[in-house]
Amino acid sequence: MPDLKPVLFVVGVLLCGLAVGMVLPALADALQPNPNWQIFVLSALSTGFVGMLLVLAYRGRSGFTLDLRQGFLLTALSWLVLAAFAALPFAYLSDNLSYTDAFFEAISGLTTTGSTVLVGLDRLPPGILLWRSILQWLGGMGIIAMAILLLPFLRVGGMQLFRAESSDRSDKVVSRPWDLAAYIGLVYLGLTAVCAVTYRLAGMTRFDAINHAMTTLSTGGFSTRDASFAYFTSPAIQWTGIVFMLSGSLPFVAYIRTLRGREPFIWRDSQVRTMLGIMMAASAVLVAVLWLGNGSPFFDSLRLVLFNVVSVVTTSGYAAADYQLWGSLSVGIFFLLAFVGGCTGSTAGGVKIFRFQVLWIVGQAQLRHLLQPHRVAPISYGGRALPDDIAPSVLAFLFVFVGGVAVLSLGLTAFGLDLVTSLSGAVSALANVGPGLGPIIGPAGTYATLPDGAKWLLAAGMLLGRLELFTILVLFQRAFWRW
Amino acid sequence: MPDLKPVLFVVGVLLCGLAVGMVLPALADALQPNPNWQIFVLSALSTGFVGMLLVLAYRGRSGFTLDLRQGFLLTALSWLVLAAFAALPFAYLSDNLSYTDAFFEAISGLTTTGSTVLVGLDRLPPGILLWRSILQWLGGMGIIAMAILLLPFLRVGGMQLFRAESSDRSDKVVSRPWDLAAYIGLVYLGLTAVCAVTYRLAGMTRFDAINHAMTTLSTGGFSTRDASFAYFTSPAIQWTGIVFMLSGSLPFVAYIRTLRGREPFIWRDSQVRTMLGIMMAASAVLVAVLWLGNGSPFFDSLRLVLFNVVSVVTTSGYAAADYQLWGSLSVGIFFLLAFVGGCTGSTAGGVKIFRFQVLWIVGQAQLRHLLQPHRVAPISYGGRALPDDIAPSVLAFLFVFVGGVAVLSLGLTAFGLDLVTSLSGAVSALANVGPGLGPIIGPAGTYATLPDGAKWLLAAGMLLGRLELFTILVLFQRAFWRW
Repeated sequence: MPDLKPVLFVVGVLLCGLAVGMVLPALADALQPNPNWQIFVLSALSTGFVGMLLVLAYRGRSGFTLDLRQGFLLTALSWLVLAAFAALPFAYLSDNLSYTDAFFEAISGLTTTGSTVLVGLDRLPPGILLWRSILQWLGGMGIIAMAILLLPFLRVGGMQLFRAESSDRSDKVVSRPWDLAAYIGLVYLGLTAVCAVTYRLAGMTRFDAINHAMTTLSTGGFSTRDASFAYFTSPAIQWTGIVFMLSGSLPFVAYIRTLRGREPFIWRDSQVRTMLGIMMAASAVLVAVLWLGNGSPFFDSLRLVLFNVVSVVTTSGYAAADYQLWGSLSVGIFFLLAFVGGCTGSTAGGVKIFRFQVLWIVGQAQLRHLLQPHRVAPISYGGRALPDDIAPSVLAFLFVFVGGVAVLSLGLTAFGLDLVTSLSGAVSALANVGPGLGPIIGPAGTYATLPDGAKWLLAAGMLLGRLELFTILVLFQRAFWRW
Repeated sequence: MPDLKPVLFVVGVLLCGLAVGMVLPALADALQPNPNWQIFVLSALSTGFVGMLLVLAYRGRSGFTLDLRQGFLLTALSWLVLAAFAALPFAYLSDNLSYTDAFFEAISGLTTTGSTVLVGLDRLPPGILLWRSILQWLGGMGIIAMAILLLPFLRVGGMQLFRAESSDRSDKVVSRPWDLAAYIGLVYLGLTAVCAVTYRLAGMTRFDAINHAMTTLSTGGFSTRDASFAYFTSPAIQWTGIVFMLSGSLPFVAYIRTLRGREPFIWRDSQVRTMLGIMMAASAVLVAVLWLGNGSPFFDSLRLVLFNVVSVVTTSGYAAADYQLWGSLSVGIFFLLAFVGGCTGSTAGGVKIFRFQVLWIVGQAQLRHLLQPHRVAPISYGGRALPDDIAPSVLAFLFVFVGGVAVLSLGLTAFGLDLVTSLSGAVSALANVGPGLGPIIGPAGTYATLPDGAKWLLAAGMLLGRLELFTILVLFQRAFWRW
């Protein structure tokens, strides 16, 4: 049994932070005024109480460090416990929302997935809308911090590739990892502020602008409107969304490098170039379908296509149009795009670009190996030799991802959902995208009507996907608890 | 440029063999009598003529050997050219069948896929029905020979794992590979004969029994009836089908071992045990759905479920019931089962059991590695250490397979097919199963109505899948033609 004390201490600290976060929606409701503020005070008190208990019970360990197993436990436990408490305001909101719904909404927020079970958003009190946005914003921050500070050291799914970025002395971005986290927090906050101001200038109300800025930078996809981005007909608002969803899906370490003048342009990163290439290829086909095929005006087609492609690839999941109406090729393209995901070290989910790059390199090497079985050619990535343990690690990740899609969609069919809903729902949850395909959970649909069991399955999928699968799976090894 | 002469010589020999094969359906038609026999004589003459030309032009190379590149070329070229000529009788059959349809039917036969574009089978002349069965039977023989004699040496998709079986001196089954092929041919022929007799005793006509025996052992799935196995309502016939489809999907080397008393039971092979385990798990769930859920009698449920599960996993693709009517869970299960495939060295297609076993072992090793990053534990398969090059080879294969499903289904959506038809059609072609899902190509449907472009895509998918993907992909490397 690993020592749980330092793990529970950190979870307690995080819960206290969450309780403080609940004060903001309470203020928003109190200022309107809307009696709903009491929900948040109640939730903040319960959350803060449990958090303080944990902190007080397990404090006093001077300069503690976490070992490998404690690192895995902390990662899994903190996301799970935070979601459980973040669900309280939703559970208190109305008798129509069960705790299943509340937990689904909370984990969908924290994992920046953006699937929702709430309907009638336009009429909800401001506090609850703000709370959803705050959850995504905090979740986005959390995932960047995890990707930079924790996952590379846990060697999850090839992420050890990015360990060099912060530990290699010759290529250090900043001197200490906590400094790096602070810089990144500032960039994240700054971009969110710029995004909010731009949304406001483009025509959103102040409240909509702040909320959408938080869910855009975190590539989360919660909206304050049932119609999501289709509500905002102004092209300027949609273009702003495109730009800042992209900003959220770029590797944040590259921002710091660019700011410090190490690299002139963020575009020199090969992940970024590959991601943009995939987006452009898919968009070109879809614009052709809409403009030449369906006869929509060129610039409207371009904007709508770019918005939806960027929304799915960055795993934001905002809907600006029901692309299922664009024809069967479009459905196929969006189904596949949901797998892709953004760059590592950003707020985006999905399989992630670097894994496709490693896959491509390994596939090429296999083909060469078939022709010249006795020549061993080194495999290089980004100009350096790819370490030996990366390829199997990435390939195992990819297959657990596909296996996860299989198991999850099989589970969903067991609840009576059709194959398209089940498959696309499974991919959407594991890749933290948000909407699926089909009439129920498609861009024009909602997760509200799914059976409870399906909601728990999808919630588990979101958490698995957000924590890069292996962080959770490792906990189910007998050796984890014995050794 | 590799030297094409010995490759073309062998292709010529194979074409002459195919021409001889065309005499059988000519006899069947002539005996009835049906004027259709002329089609086969014409086809045999054209095929034999081209074959003889190639043999005469490139003969006289005493004791020739093939190098690696010639091995790849021969594999790809012989299947493609044989299918092109095997299509002739279909193309001559009626004005309603285009060459696209004829080629689709021929490649579907030779690759033992079993998708058909012919409707009204019950009224077709016996020659053409026999020709379809002969194509599958020859294709099944060809794929076993390839899997044992050729693919392990081409190191395709981890098949080098099975090289030891014939080259390792201590564990040799028979002394020379050609002897092994001859033994296996005898076992294949013997099993087919026993199967035909059993079908006859169970109530099929002599003609039906012979045809179905050929397409059962080859796990091909062509039938002489539009209703496929749903036509034969006798339980005895369906149980016979279950037993002999299974026989066709077992590793044929294990038969020889069992006959020579090396191993008491074929069940000791770990591939066989895993395959049977997967079948039993899926069947247990489906029987529960049919028996407890839908209230069908237990033994009828058991027989129907087993028949359809065995038919899909062994990639036979006979239909005995439209399992899409059994509910959404059943659709999900059959979608996933289509990926599985039989054992290596059998007539079955699909991803194949040993690759899932390697995947499982590698995944387990990755999880152990996460906990104990500094301990290097050897990975073993079947009691021996897994050679270093197997895991990346298998993983690359699996991902090219999944990537192939993605590309192929995207192509099919471009022809206006819905997502379920496109995805299941792509899997069904690449895994050489036969039927897909949905109203068009499902177990109760037909490929006849698909657009020509979709038929060519599916034909390409069948060939790619049958030749284990890399055998074809390697030809598209620039280095293949230059070096």
